[in-house]
Amino acid sequence: VTPLIDSKRLWASIIETAEFGALSQGGLRRLSLSPEDGLVRDWLRTKCEALGCTVRIDEVGNMFALWRGGTSALDPIAIGSHMDTQPTGGKFDGVLGVLGGLEVLRTLAAENYRTRHPLMLINWTNEEGSRFSPAMLGSGAHAGIFDRDVVYETRDNDGLRFRDALDSINYLGNEKLGSVKFRAMFELHIEQGPLLETAHRDIGVVLGVQGVRWFDVKLRGQEAHSGSTPLQHRRDALCAAARLVTAVRAIAESSREGVGTVGSLKVIPNSRNVIPGEVLLTIDLRNASEIGLDQMQSRLLVQLDQLRIEGFEPEISEAWRNPALRFDSDCIAAVRHGAVQAGLETKDLVSGAGHDAAYVARVAPTAMIFIPCKDGLSHNQAESATFEQCANGVQVLLNSVISYDSGAFAVCYPA
Amino acid sequence: VTPLIDSKRLWASIIETAEFGALSQGGLRRLSLSPEDGLVRDWLRTKCEALGCTVRIDEVGNMFALWRGGTSALDPIAIGSHMDTQPTGGKFDGVLGVLGGLEVLRTLAAENYRTRHPLMLINWTNEEGSRFSPAMLGSGAHAGIFDRDVVYETRDNDGLRFRDALDSINYLGNEKLGSVKFRAMFELHIEQGPLLETAHRDIGVVLGVQGVRWFDVKLRGQEAHSGSTPLQHRRDALCAAARLVTAVRAIAESSREGVGTVGSLKVIPNSRNVIPGEVLLTIDLRNASEIGLDQMQSRLLVQLDQLRIEGFEPEISEAWRNPALRFDSDCIAAVRHGAVQAGLETKDLVSGAGHDAAYVARVAPTAMIFIPCKDGLSHNQAESATFEQCANGVQVLLNSVISYDSGAFAVCYPA
Repeated sequence: VTPLIDSKRLWASIIETAEFGALSQGGLRRLSLSPEDGLVRDWLRTKCEALGCTVRIDEVGNMFALWRGGTSALDPIAIGSHMDTQPTGGKFDGVLGVLGGLEVLRTLAAENYRTRHPLMLINWTNEEGSRFSPAMLGSGAHAGIFDRDVVYETRDNDGLRFRDALDSINYLGNEKLGSVKFRAMFELHIEQGPLLETAHRDIGVVLGVQGVRWFDVKLRGQEAHSGSTPLQHRRDALCAAARLVTAVRAIAESSREGVGTVGSLKVIPNSRNVIPGEVLLTIDLRNASEIGLDQMQSRLLVQLDQLRIEGFEPEISEAWRNPALRFDSDCIAAVRHGAVQAGLETKDLVSGAGHDAAYVARVAPTAMIFIPCKDGLSHNQAESATFEQCANGVQVLLNSVISYDSGAFAVCYPA
Repeated sequence: VTPLIDSKRLWASIIETAEFGALSQGGLRRLSLSPEDGLVRDWLRTKCEALGCTVRIDEVGNMFALWRGGTSALDPIAIGSHMDTQPTGGKFDGVLGVLGGLEVLRTLAAENYRTRHPLMLINWTNEEGSRFSPAMLGSGAHAGIFDRDVVYETRDNDGLRFRDALDSINYLGNEKLGSVKFRAMFELHIEQGPLLETAHRDIGVVLGVQGVRWFDVKLRGQEAHSGSTPLQHRRDALCAAARLVTAVRAIAESSREGVGTVGSLKVIPNSRNVIPGEVLLTIDLRNASEIGLDQMQSRLLVQLDQLRIEGFEPEISEAWRNPALRFDSDCIAAVRHGAVQAGLETKDLVSGAGHDAAYVARVAPTAMIFIPCKDGLSHNQAESATFEQCANGVQVLLNSVISYDSGAFAVCYPA
């Protein structure tokens, strides 16, 4: 039988590690490669070594704790997430995935449960991207998306280099980037959205990650006096921007699986009695499929063409993109089975947020498990998940790993 | 016959005084009570005294140059405007009205033309309001709108008090505020809008000044992740603000003589991948009549009620208001006659910008004369009016003063 996790031990580890970077309102400030990040990494290493794990550190500080529970001829099945947080983040985002993985190892160790594959717990470096940009730097570097030396030269707001920060907490490892291999990876995470809570489901089976396209847009109007300039003589850049904001929402509404957001908008000169002469804004389009994203982008360009005809000289540039991703069907099947086995209600989801699993999926079979979080909130001290929700997630994580280990869902599995 | 002004002398005075605070692109930086303002005031005083004027300075630095051209039993007819500029202003805004008045005096003096009334040239302190807030401080204080001691304590961005700045350029006068009386005042000014240029008219007969109401509005949404928050769960404060910006424009379009502007808008937290949680914006409504303003404001409140129903918790506060104003009909008639006499084409206008004349109108019969300015631009180094346009304006100014002096248009005039 599949062992049951110790949910009190899990919760105790969440509370204990939340001391590293604790904020007054229950949240955490544990920026990547900060002294607090160093402390929680040391804690994790100690706990893993106590289980008999070998902990290896790669060149960007990713931590790989190998638990030789299985046959060393096979690559390990990995469980991974991150332990860094936003500047005023919560106790669960990322942390749950790593501590959940630790709980899986502890449970299997306590029960002397033998898996076929070795298991591996991974703590990815700098997932949040709020100190060193971009986000998911460690998993991206592992997957070959980011070059090591470029990562090393990345600087935080104080001008400190990534490499020096990594060195200062003693996590500049010597394992070559990408050299640590694993058979598959499972990541448990809070949803960071309201769908599970609203639908009263326990577990999100994550089918993939939305594709993202980020744009910077500039609209030009004509600065003029707000009193003496008749309406028909105005070229008000903010009126044009307002129509674009409304259009982005409409484009998202008319797409099947898309969302769209203008999160940042700057008015120039931004004076009460001056007609806005220029507006800079950002557009964030997301969709579960690349075709959906293409359609949204086409509709956006039509809107900009209309503004061009009206003289607003729109300029658009792509700031970043990340393609839509589908997780591995075997891994997804293992998660679905793991949830059923735990007697929990599931809902299929596509993740709207980026995750380490999205980069890892480029080099290994991967899937994710979501649990609900209160009001869908994250990146916020008020971020919250209950004792029971966390326990449910970790049990499904364990079940998924065991299922995958058994090969029951491995369509192309070399048994 | 009415004398003709010397347009070359007028232009030379514009060019000469433009040295005080000259910027590289042809504009001026002559902030109120700055050393440059002191220099141009000294220049003006010298020129007025050379004509035999007595120059009096009141407690806030307003300069009154009395030209005893008439019967001292009558109050003088005044010509007034201002010589301070915006931080990057032009050569004409305000300056033309004062130097035009000087040219009127010089012309009449050269011709030994005797008016019935004495004449008076006024240079109002701090019209622009860009160093010391609010605008039109000197004329407002003269009209009893602003208290002397409050004005004295007003500070610039460096924390310097108005009274100390005034003292530093030696223009802290001893004439009691409001004690200098005049029969009427005429103000010549560039239009600061495109109507005359577009209509190919030489002279704007200014019937009044638009009423202004300024509002500060706050809209509250729910900050959330731009990827993982489905559209139907969003409360996006910027989407609400965009609809409000569009509504303000529509409200202005549906009003007979109104304009409306959102000039300033701030998004919180203003991050590319966070749904805006709060938006602060300003609304500037203007109309030629108070009834028109009331209607615009009512329609605005209906829009805010709709946003309230949708959960955006709108808050609105009035930041400032200035009632709509009609100039004196006798003064207007004198301007209209003065333009016809000069053989110039006129257009009736309502000023969209505030002017010293608007405060003066509360204590004396007043009217304004506009000339076109290039592209309607002002508060900008590119502000421009031609030699001929300036000359036209000053000739009409002289004609208006002479007409008013003759009593031909004085319905209630004590002849």
